[in-house]
Amino acid sequence: MAKQDDIFKNVISHAKEYGFIFPSSEIYDGLSAVYDYAQNGVELKKNIREYWWQSMVQMHENIVGLDAAILMHPTTWKASGHVDAFNDPLIDNKDSKKRYRADVLIEDYAEKLNQKAEKEIEKARARFGEAFDEEQYKSTNPRVMEYLSRKKEILERMARSLETENLADVKALIEELEIACPDSGSKNWTDVKQFNLMFGTKLGASAESAMDLYLRPETAQGIFVNFLNVQKTGRMKIPFGIAQTGKAFRNEIVARQFIFRMREFEQMEMQFFVKPGEEMKWYEYWKETRLKWHQSLGLGKENYRFHDHEKLAHYANAAADIEFNFPFGFKELEGIHSRTDFDLKAHEEFSGKKLQYFDTEENKNYTPYVVETSVGLDRMFLAVFSKSLQEETLEDGSTRTVLRLPSVLAPTKAAVLPLVKKDGLPEVARKIIDDLKWDFNVAYDEKDAVGRRYRRQDALGTPFCITVDHQTLEDKTVTIRHRDSMQQDRVEIAKLRDIISNEVSMRNWLMKM
Amino acid sequence: MAKQDDIFKNVISHAKEYGFIFPSSEIYDGLSAVYDYAQNGVELKKNIREYWWQSMVQMHENIVGLDAAILMHPTTWKASGHVDAFNDPLIDNKDSKKRYRADVLIEDYAEKLNQKAEKEIEKARARFGEAFDEEQYKSTNPRVMEYLSRKKEILERMARSLETENLADVKALIEELEIACPDSGSKNWTDVKQFNLMFGTKLGASAESAMDLYLRPETAQGIFVNFLNVQKTGRMKIPFGIAQTGKAFRNEIVARQFIFRMREFEQMEMQFFVKPGEEMKWYEYWKETRLKWHQSLGLGKENYRFHDHEKLAHYANAAADIEFNFPFGFKELEGIHSRTDFDLKAHEEFSGKKLQYFDTEENKNYTPYVVETSVGLDRMFLAVFSKSLQEETLEDGSTRTVLRLPSVLAPTKAAVLPLVKKDGLPEVARKIIDDLKWDFNVAYDEKDAVGRRYRRQDALGTPFCITVDHQTLEDKTVTIRHRDSMQQDRVEIAKLRDIISNEVSMRNWLMKM
Repeated sequence: MAKQDDIFKNVISHAKEYGFIFPSSEIYDGLSAVYDYAQNGVELKKNIREYWWQSMVQMHENIVGLDAAILMHPTTWKASGHVDAFNDPLIDNKDSKKRYRADVLIEDYAEKLNQKAEKEIEKARARFGEAFDEEQYKSTNPRVMEYLSRKKEILERMARSLETENLADVKALIEELEIACPDSGSKNWTDVKQFNLMFGTKLGASAESAMDLYLRPETAQGIFVNFLNVQKTGRMKIPFGIAQTGKAFRNEIVARQFIFRMREFEQMEMQFFVKPGEEMKWYEYWKETRLKWHQSLGLGKENYRFHDHEKLAHYANAAADIEFNFPFGFKELEGIHSRTDFDLKAHEEFSGKKLQYFDTEENKNYTPYVVETSVGLDRMFLAVFSKSLQEETLEDGSTRTVLRLPSVLAPTKAAVLPLVKKDGLPEVARKIIDDLKWDFNVAYDEKDAVGRRYRRQDALGTPFCITVDHQTLEDKTVTIRHRDSMQQDRVEIAKLRDIISNEVSMRNWLMKM
Repeated sequence: MAKQDDIFKNVISHAKEYGFIFPSSEIYDGLSAVYDYAQNGVELKKNIREYWWQSMVQMHENIVGLDAAILMHPTTWKASGHVDAFNDPLIDNKDSKKRYRADVLIEDYAEKLNQKAEKEIEKARARFGEAFDEEQYKSTNPRVMEYLSRKKEILERMARSLETENLADVKALIEELEIACPDSGSKNWTDVKQFNLMFGTKLGASAESAMDLYLRPETAQGIFVNFLNVQKTGRMKIPFGIAQTGKAFRNEIVARQFIFRMREFEQMEMQFFVKPGEEMKWYEYWKETRLKWHQSLGLGKENYRFHDHEKLAHYANAAADIEFNFPFGFKELEGIHSRTDFDLKAHEEFSGKKLQYFDTEENKNYTPYVVETSVGLDRMFLAVFSKSLQEETLEDGSTRTVLRLPSVLAPTKAAVLPLVKKDGLPEVARKIIDDLKWDFNVAYDEKDAVGRRYRRQDALGTPFCITVDHQTLEDKTVTIRHRDSMQQDRVEIAKLRDIISNEVSMRNWLMKM
């Protein structure tokens, strides 16, 4: 665990130092769980968003885009269930005045039991060596069995109580387990209360006439309320999808893990409308397609896995996460949900308007079923960034920090470096930039020894460094250095564009997917 | 005016019918002054944003991007002056209970005086014919002089009263002018009150611990608070710029003119940091550069003009608008402002942190001056869309509706149409799409006669239609039809990619700018 923590700290400090992510409003000591994307971060984020968009919209004849506003009519959130049920159970400690999510306190307690079991298992593994059978041990060792069954019992009771809105029992559980305030050690708790996670605001000028609005907590509803308008004006035939990227907001109490869980975040969602009864086929299709998309980035197939939901949300009949191996373990990166006709039916009910599709083949109207794919763009950024950041020991024993970003996503595609700041080399470098800048983000760097400049570009994830030296003046060749292999080739200036394009262009990355 | 109104109505209905813009939450009868970008609108908007981004960031070695969050520390807005001074003066009519902007009521009154003067001038022009000298007439005709001087007097008094926060005099002026409620005709007014235009929200779970936040009313402050972080981590040397696109929110009372003035809108801003004393040079540079950028789209140079501000905002020492000839007349499209060191100094004061630049050439610290370029992305969309929408009478006397979007911005670059739905033509069309889709948004359409399909693509702004016919099966050629000229050429399938790319690629548009 200590090592994981170190890696994660290193990710956060590298993101700040190299201009990828800054804490929001840092000169005012920050705004908790809100972050700004800095000069390199904004490019990486844009590239991820565009790679998703082209894969989903440009590549699919039957998927179109949408950009719905963040502010929506408030009845939207009555219909979707967010006004009534998008809550976290909160509890205050009376002594420390600190506020916690009651479910997180209990989950943390259960996790400690799990860790105790793991420790026993590891001790036994060390004792028995290769002959050790973990499954058998788990089901026979009394101490391990006790830990795991208590853990299961606690989580099940909590889930039951939350589901039935029995908040008194959630508090009783905390008291029975003698859970103390992590801050003060006190066990003096208030009752558990539900707290709605939507940010509220008011439209209009006066208190009397103002309309209560919410900042959308998810982008999906913007797609549902526009479903029929898009279908009709775009003459879409089922099955078809509507894709959208955009900001969403959740007033999280426990926001943590850097950009993994933020109060303001960006989603990349696609809602796929299908004939009722065909949703499981498409659910499987999109699970596989989305996994393949993630794996196309080359960050290692072993870093992704499916997690099928056992407990389903009220709107779903099947749901799975694509989990990624973050510095703090495997966590949700994308959700694929078979949402049935829950949302469209709810909007029909609350709006009094029909949201049905006329199927010309079947010659009848029906409310389509929906399969959703939903990625957190910020999580995707964190996945790509953290897995790309590597410390390497080189042959000569020195180390280098290299950000092995998939080249299609790298903020800058090439840096052009004059070997020295004289003899006309800077001018040649700038001429090369003037030629390449129409196609790529290209940087110029003339400060420090060229070795240091290479290291700087490695740390920024720039796939290519192009060095202009005295030979360039004679034969119009330069060296091109590859970030990952550090190999340097001598090539003609005239060939640079093709070499770079071949490696970094989105076209090529999409084609090889 | 009637004709202008018709044109504008036509723009709005075309935007809806062809899937560019829908009213937000339309199934719930809409949310006032908020709109959603539909399947074609989202692509046009994306292309405008990307064209701006590449021109500003990719083309300029000394301009980098940023993506700051919408939520910022609230002290940001104290420092910027928005908490205290970002107000509209509002007045209620006691009988109709309708609320108005007091300044707009007075401006509308003054505009009527202006129209009366214009009418007299037009009558005189008709009488005198070519010999008519408008300037002379204005300064000699007593009636016209009276209208214009009253107009000037009223606007000056209002400006003075607003500037000195003398709201009682604003009310007195409304009463003296006997301005009536446009809804009821009543002159029974309340006092004038200031109303802050920022949307508020609360961060945190309990009423006691909650922090008052605002949805940012402009993106600029996100750049200012990050200025030093970007400068240091990006090793930027003055002069340099930080560019950003993103949402901003204003609780407008009188939001109108479709997407021209919305409560939720998107800005494309660039703040250029310069040495104090050099700001006027850069102000002129950016005025010219930005005008040229707009004109590069080919919508007609005569549709743009500068409007220099006579009255300057508290932070500015020079300011101009680039105005565009919208369907409702010339209005602001982009603002270029010399903002001095007002913002950085204010943030230094409120944060207690230094926001200074160390100039290595001058060997001293200073607070940079700032020149801002700020475009409304939605306004830009409206400008491009409204000017591109044309009704044409063809040679045969029939009319066609054509959306002559600059091809670099068109949502779909080519539509591939099989002449008939049989004989293997659809399969060939789909093969062509499979070849082109890696580079462009390409559509397939097989429904209706080919002439109707051409018209449909004209109305969507698609620059090329590619028709697959029986000859295609024999010699691998297709016809390619140009949207604007309607000319059709017979070309080899293998050449399509280059023909389209040559016309639509952002690279080529940037190069010819």
